[in-house]
Amino acid sequence: MSDAVSPLATPFPYLPAIAGVTPRVARAGYKDWGRCDLTYVELSEGTSVAGVFTRNVCCSSEVEIGRANVAKGSARALVVNAGNSNAFTGYRGREAVEQIMVQVAEHLGCAQEEVFVSSTGVIGVPLPKDKARGGVAAALTASPCSWEEAAHTISTTDTFPKGATATAVVGATTVTISAIIKGSGMIAPDMATMLGYLFTDAAVAPAFLQECLSRANKATFSCITVDSDTSTSDTVLAFATGKAGNATLTSFDDAGADGFAAAIHDVCRQLAHLVVRDGEGAQKFIAVTVSGAASDDSAHRVGLAIANSPLVKTAIAGEDANWGRVVMAVGKAGEPADRDKLSIGFGGIWAAREGLPLADYDEAPLAAHLKGQDITIEVDLGLGDGRAQVWTCDLTHGYISINADYRS
Amino acid sequence: MSDAVSPLATPFPYLPAIAGVTPRVARAGYKDWGRCDLTYVELSEGTSVAGVFTRNVCCSSEVEIGRANVAKGSARALVVNAGNSNAFTGYRGREAVEQIMVQVAEHLGCAQEEVFVSSTGVIGVPLPKDKARGGVAAALTASPCSWEEAAHTISTTDTFPKGATATAVVGATTVTISAIIKGSGMIAPDMATMLGYLFTDAAVAPAFLQECLSRANKATFSCITVDSDTSTSDTVLAFATGKAGNATLTSFDDAGADGFAAAIHDVCRQLAHLVVRDGEGAQKFIAVTVSGAASDDSAHRVGLAIANSPLVKTAIAGEDANWGRVVMAVGKAGEPADRDKLSIGFGGIWAAREGLPLADYDEAPLAAHLKGQDITIEVDLGLGDGRAQVWTCDLTHGYISINADYRS
Repeated sequence: MSDAVSPLATPFPYLPAIAGVTPRVARAGYKDWGRCDLTYVELSEGTSVAGVFTRNVCCSSEVEIGRANVAKGSARALVVNAGNSNAFTGYRGREAVEQIMVQVAEHLGCAQEEVFVSSTGVIGVPLPKDKARGGVAAALTASPCSWEEAAHTISTTDTFPKGATATAVVGATTVTISAIIKGSGMIAPDMATMLGYLFTDAAVAPAFLQECLSRANKATFSCITVDSDTSTSDTVLAFATGKAGNATLTSFDDAGADGFAAAIHDVCRQLAHLVVRDGEGAQKFIAVTVSGAASDDSAHRVGLAIANSPLVKTAIAGEDANWGRVVMAVGKAGEPADRDKLSIGFGGIWAAREGLPLADYDEAPLAAHLKGQDITIEVDLGLGDGRAQVWTCDLTHGYISINADYRS
Repeated sequence: MSDAVSPLATPFPYLPAIAGVTPRVARAGYKDWGRCDLTYVELSEGTSVAGVFTRNVCCSSEVEIGRANVAKGSARALVVNAGNSNAFTGYRGREAVEQIMVQVAEHLGCAQEEVFVSSTGVIGVPLPKDKARGGVAAALTASPCSWEEAAHTISTTDTFPKGATATAVVGATTVTISAIIKGSGMIAPDMATMLGYLFTDAAVAPAFLQECLSRANKATFSCITVDSDTSTSDTVLAFATGKAGNATLTSFDDAGADGFAAAIHDVCRQLAHLVVRDGEGAQKFIAVTVSGAASDDSAHRVGLAIANSPLVKTAIAGEDANWGRVVMAVGKAGEPADRDKLSIGFGGIWAAREGLPLADYDEAPLAAHLKGQDITIEVDLGLGDGRAQVWTCDLTHGYISINADYRS
């Protein structure tokens, strides 16, 4: 963890323990740092699993193997290595992952494919097998740790540990989700991959858990961007132990399914926002709302064009109500837009409406909004009913310092 | 012009006068600056015109009108306003452009559609008609000026004036191209639109001039990026007066046509590189070569994904041979790629081959290359014969300072 905490950091919340889930940490020594760097989470028998992964075609072995095994639906353990992403390391990297899977499976007496592995850190260096073996051995027998300790241990360049929780009522049973995440660039493959893990005591069939996670992912993790870059290792996994004893959720037709899906969505949104709040160099949290688009997907792409625009992000860093840069970003998105129907505002106050600056434009209230930490940008395309919201942070000297001054 | 000249600046070259082309400058006073800000270039009767324009759908009236009139093929004058882009100004902006066209057309006794207008500067403020009228009136009767003076006058945030020249032999006739350009972000709609103008004494039919310019554009201006942002006003126009007296070029079947097209390409490449060399905050000029792609277009898109990646650009700023970030950028491009066939190098030296770091990887020669000002990144995808080259600059604290500290 870095010394300088993000000004947008929030305190680590109280996360309830989840029946059937036992986190432990150990020190594999992947880097020369005086901290634990291997997280091991044991899951009770019968745990369902779902996952979403990076679309980067140069993904790591962890992602390839995890994607294949999530489809089988069953999990008994999670291992997260911090300090080495093991990406772009060919067959040697794959061997290291398989060694960890075998070692844990032998300990638990489970199938190898029920052990999920993630790694984050420098790329191009195969995960050292001896350090992995020693770290896993230590973790298997370590005392259980707190969620906060686990959140610390999966982190690399993060400036604060990140967790979220929510509950839902399924039938007469209250089920709980506790979740942790790491990530601060979106994304530096070196040191800032986004890895997130949700744990719930709910009984949920794997296919429905996947449906809930995929839906939530589309509206949360897929709607955040720090620098438009995409890690080779991004992974979010959801584990459901079933220990709460509810009637197993299998589809949206089941009682309580909507509430459970909403709780998953809520936790994913919290986690996604925490990643943005730890965005490299971030000084301001920015929510971009696009309405009036030809479709929701079109609105999403326009939103990302705005959120990824270096000129928009530097304008916000400079507390400048520079709506002209937003016009530019809308226009370059390649989506249906009509200059003469476009309206743009900040903090809920319009600066330009239907293609023209407001006749009585007063910058003062917009400037006041932009001095805050939580910024909103509103864009109405005036074309249809398509809507989307995306989140990002500003682009500051801090981002340059972190990424230009870091040596691989 | 800014006081702090780009470290990548080159001296303004000697540009020959072009028969039938007379540049003049005047002071319209669009901004409160002590310099000329209106450029007027008179073109002899019979001048052909071709043009390429921004694809930003929120383009300015100047672009809409220019695009329509280029199709008619004939030009008598060019007017460039600096300090106000007149973009996003609705019908009022359009009226200002038409006023300039009428004023010049009346002076020359030509058709209104033969007068081309460009504007660059702050957006959302209609070009003031009174200042435009006075500036045009002064320019129409001003003494002819040098190419360097014209290059200065079309500039806004540029830190040095930019020009290029080339010659070709058509039949027994030597024809000459002189050209100027402005631009330093690619692009800030506020103050850094790319505007380029080529002037030649060659006799060229408009359709063939357009073919030469469009081909050159695809391999030059379309291959540069500073910050992935796209102006609402980007424009490159080519004017051919025919005063050299060569047999009019109408297609690639004509003698000398290949040489002429090559000269247009050469000038466009020079101009494009000059814009990158004045990229906001640029300390290093970066050429990215992609080979082994599924197609040339695929290679181009992979190249732009690399050149637009903030993490790659900050790594170069930090003189860090961080090939992992290049892997990430290749993977996120959405183009065919295979991690295990991918090779990456800097300065002609491979760092990774076919999906693995070199066994005998020695960072010293790569580090030495990265200390220079002219950086090359080589990527071989190992899939096919597709090839492309794109150019960009590094991402530095200077970019943040220019764009975050500027107030609209």
